[in-house]
Amino acid sequence: MIQIIANNYIKADKVDEFLKLAVGLVEETRAKDAGCIRYELVQDMKNPQILTMLEEWEDQESLKSHMSSPHFIKITTATADFAEKTAEVHVCKKII
Amino acid sequence: MIQIIANNYIKADKVDEFLKLAVGLVEETRAKDAGCIRYELVQDMKNPQILTMLEEWEDQESLKSHMSSPHFIKITTATADFAEKTAEVHVCKKII
Repeated sequence: MIQIIANNYIKADKVDEFLKLAVGLVEETRAKDAGCIRYELVQDMKNPQILTMLEEWEDQESLKSHMSSPHFIKITTATADFAEKTAEVHVCKKII
Repeated sequence: MIQIIANNYIKADKVDEFLKLAVGLVEETRAKDAGCIRYELVQDMKNPQILTMLEEWEDQESLKSHMSSPHFIKITTATADFAEKTAEVHVCKKII
């Protein structure tokens, strides 16, 4: 089991557009990607420019497949210039 | 519903001790704290000194009660000098 915490730092004027695309990604991922246990999008209440994906995957293989899926590649390409700074991705193991 | 992402940056020689105490906190929180929907501890696989609590609470009130509970105060006090740098806490709302 692998957990991902992916913090996206989005430009203020791109937050709404990012949200729309990211919600679509969550829906497609949940519907289509094998090995996806959890896939959620949360927004920092103090700084709405921080949008975080909280993910849980069965194994490295399913995560790898997700990251090469058409819907993942589509959003990565569409939001390429939305970032205020580089996303911070933590790949984690669950302790408890 | 409130989600918390709390990143703790722990000194290398304190990681094992922090893990032991934090597992105890998770167990007590799940067993005792009203309004706790999720309370998990994960560890960054690249940097095991980053230990993150992933939490979900029904409302501000239940989160506040948890943070003033004896088990929360006990670990905060016990691990006061374990941090390599200040913890980074994101209070978030769930988008999807």
